Amino acid sequence: MPISSDRLRRALNPRTAVVVGSKKADGYMWLRNYSTFTGQLSSVQIDPNEIPGIEALGVKNYTSLLDVPGEVDYVMLAVPRPVAPRVLADCAKKGVGAVALFTSGFAETGEGEGIRLQDELLRIARDGDVALIGPNCMGLYNRRLGIRQSAEQGSGDAGDVGFISQSGTHAINFSLVGEQHGVRVSTSVSIGNAIVLDVPDYLDYLADDADTKVIAMYIEGVRDGPRFVRSLRRACSQKPVVVWKGGVTAAGARATASHTGALATSSAVFRAVLRQAGALAADSLEDTIDVVKALLYAKPATGRRMGLMAMTGGQSVVITDAFVTVGLDVPRLSGASYAELASFFNIIGGSYQNPLDMGGTIGFGGSAQTLGKLFAILDADPNVDAIAMEMAAGFLARRWQADPASLDGLLDSLVAHQQRSAKPFVTILQPQHVEEIVAQARRRMQERGLAVFPSFERAARALNRAIDYHRFRAGMDVP
Amino acid sequence: MPISSDRLRRALNPRTAVVVGSKKADGYMWLRNYSTFTGQLSSVQIDPNEIPGIEALGVKNYTSLLDVPGEVDYVMLAVPRPVAPRVLADCAKKGVGAVALFTSGFAETGEGEGIRLQDELLRIARDGDVALIGPNCMGLYNRRLGIRQSAEQGSGDAGDVGFISQSGTHAINFSLVGEQHGVRVSTSVSIGNAIVLDVPDYLDYLADDADTKVIAMYIEGVRDGPRFVRSLRRACSQKPVVVWKGGVTAAGARATASHTGALATSSAVFRAVLRQAGALAADSLEDTIDVVKALLYAKPATGRRMGLMAMTGGQSVVITDAFVTVGLDVPRLSGASYAELASFFNIIGGSYQNPLDMGGTIGFGGSAQTLGKLFAILDADPNVDAIAMEMAAGFLARRWQADPASLDGLLDSLVAHQQRSAKPFVTILQPQHVEEIVAQARRRMQERGLAVFPSFERAARALNRAIDYHRFRAGMDVP
Repeated sequence: MPISSDRLRRALNPRTAVVVGSKKADGYMWLRNYSTFTGQLSSVQIDPNEIPGIEALGVKNYTSLLDVPGEVDYVMLAVPRPVAPRVLADCAKKGVGAVALFTSGFAETGEGEGIRLQDELLRIARDGDVALIGPNCMGLYNRRLGIRQSAEQGSGDAGDVGFISQSGTHAINFSLVGEQHGVRVSTSVSIGNAIVLDVPDYLDYLADDADTKVIAMYIEGVRDGPRFVRSLRRACSQKPVVVWKGGVTAAGARATASHTGALATSSAVFRAVLRQAGALAADSLEDTIDVVKALLYAKPATGRRMGLMAMTGGQSVVITDAFVTVGLDVPRLSGASYAELASFFNIIGGSYQNPLDMGGTIGFGGSAQTLGKLFAILDADPNVDAIAMEMAAGFLARRWQADPASLDGLLDSLVAHQQRSAKPFVTILQPQHVEEIVAQARRRMQERGLAVFPSFERAARALNRAIDYHRFRAGMDVP
Repeated sequence: MPISSDRLRRALNPRTAVVVGSKKADGYMWLRNYSTFTGQLSSVQIDPNEIPGIEALGVKNYTSLLDVPGEVDYVMLAVPRPVAPRVLADCAKKGVGAVALFTSGFAETGEGEGIRLQDELLRIARDGDVALIGPNCMGLYNRRLGIRQSAEQGSGDAGDVGFISQSGTHAINFSLVGEQHGVRVSTSVSIGNAIVLDVPDYLDYLADDADTKVIAMYIEGVRDGPRFVRSLRRACSQKPVVVWKGGVTAAGARATASHTGALATSSAVFRAVLRQAGALAADSLEDTIDVVKALLYAKPATGRRMGLMAMTGGQSVVITDAFVTVGLDVPRLSGASYAELASFFNIIGGSYQNPLDMGGTIGFGGSAQTLGKLFAILDADPNVDAIAMEMAAGFLARRWQADPASLDGLLDSLVAHQQRSAKPFVTILQPQHVEEIVAQARRRMQERGLAVFPSFERAARALNRAIDYHRFRAGMDVP
């Protein structure tokens, strides 16, 4: 019997949580991960040598789960493999909301004992109606409630991206790298071997979750194909879903077998399934974050004609190549735009065919007023659906050092444009040679709601897929 | 008549240099760029208002180039467009080694006056036998001699990568971003409209230059196709040549026309030319730097079978996908390797099919000794031609904070392996969420001669093309 959506809502938004098996050897990892939990946190540990260390962390310890008073919404089980079935049976008896099983060494090992133990877990979970997350997983990250997969993850505020992951590493890295790029997780689940709760359960939940604006996932295989497709279609009709599939090559699929025991799926078939459902394919962690960022930060558009702004002639050439290569257009502007541009553009050292080469205009002593004019022209141009702007990091760094206020003025212009214009707007902050300043500037721009990408290629690929999704929702052709 | 190689050697290794037209309005840009010049630097400026500012920089000023005593090897001309022909004629009269013309506004504008002036420059250069670099260019960067294109560029030590660029921006960015990645320029020339000295001249020079181990270039078009191909073939027979072509799309080619006036070349034809000559194609600044890095840091190999090392199961899957997707193989290891691995690998939470999942072995309390065993096994395995290793940035950061000495021990193991093994070795330091630590760790690893890439995809793409070059040199098939 499937786990009800109410059960899952309770489990993924716990008011009470228990860690079973916390110990000094791993630095009380799970108690530390949950130290930011806003609800009631307890511990279950029978080893008397471990109990003082646990209580020193301010956490009340019990020697049996059945002794924990009141309702338990969420249990993290980190016990030795042979003990796992017995503690899972306790969870059933206690009627907990859900159990995440950190312990590994089950079917993913491919050896007899692991497979036998996994079968036993499955039987106990089914018989006892236990909502089991994992085994071989890092469980839940609920950012708002401070239930984390890693002590490096942020907490307290609400994010807006749901993440489902067959890998604990990728779940954690998505949240950590995502945060650097202005992409914050609402709810993330590391699902491991997913023997009870599986991708469709989490997908259905995130599709209905009000905090979650975009769903992304890392998956290695799908058990129940038709059910996966049904859930995916339903989710895509409500919000964008980005799918990063691991094991797309034969050798990669061999690696998935020993990782989570996932079965290989033909990658061509899988891509076709995604396209038909309206989901967006991603190739890597960075790529997943990029697409999510474009979906979150750039306004929706269904056209692919770019208006580009670059700082020099050399960048005008390569930004154009990058956007056209992924399938976007860089058309000539309208006659009206050219007439207006001709009235103030300096022909020496600055072209305005599209891209607009801003170097001679705003680069060296130019004004925010001129920049405002360029934005207004591209915004009004009927040949332009979306706008991308190069921010040269070296130029930005020099401005910052010389006159921080003028830099604020520049960012004000960008924000004003983004607020006024209905066209998606992305910026590219590069090259990455002044790393610290780039990181600072990126954070400031993101805080002000701007989409910032580290290369032309990544901006182009991300924006193009965001447009795919908006076309899908509009019932238009998607390649 | 072509410029002789002796002339070019003199011009690109100047002992005396003159800046014509330095002025306060641009912050004496060229005098500042040349402030690190190890030879004799002089100025020519006729405007009496500008002269005190120039002399305040400690540079002797003359009011005519003909007044500068002794031989002049290199002149940077930064004068208003209408004056350029007259000063170029002075350069001819003086018999200077070469002239770089920063001034723009010539044929690249597409308008009559610019085209007329460019024709006049060409006539004067031809009649007066002037080795002209540009116009519309940033001229020479000779790192060792401290002649720079930007005051941000390093100087004093010798680099080992030659760079030819039809864009000043890309020339400067290649050197700045390259330096962050352990790729240092020997000689770089921003060639602009290239009306006299053109790509083949610089290519011939760099092919013969002893400092230069790898040549890279950014070009938008080729004037004399057969001559370009001859020079490219000759260079490729001596050292690797990486070519980043701008304007590969129709819209990108339109942008090149207003940038340097370059003619469009079919991108399929161009790729074929590169492949036949043995040159390597690159797609972007980062991509160019990546390939150069693989050529400089990784030992040569002609086989494509990878031995992979990752920190977790999730990374094992996606590192495999990344390497296989670009055309490398991730085969099963030999029976002898598996027998040895089985003797110490912990089957729970760590697979060793290939990739070796090091998490359970070295990740958590494992030793440098175990790492040494893994290296020795892959090094001896007859199924493995090259080795790639994930360095998890978060893991590294925690080690660094907890115990800097143990981190040194880890790096020692890597360096010892690289020195002992004849197989190319690349590392991937990611994810990029602890940016400062990643940047520091990358620098330390590079200083010790290790090839460090920021993502699996970039490592795989770069290594694969380095192997292409070594196969070309060995007379083997290249796709």
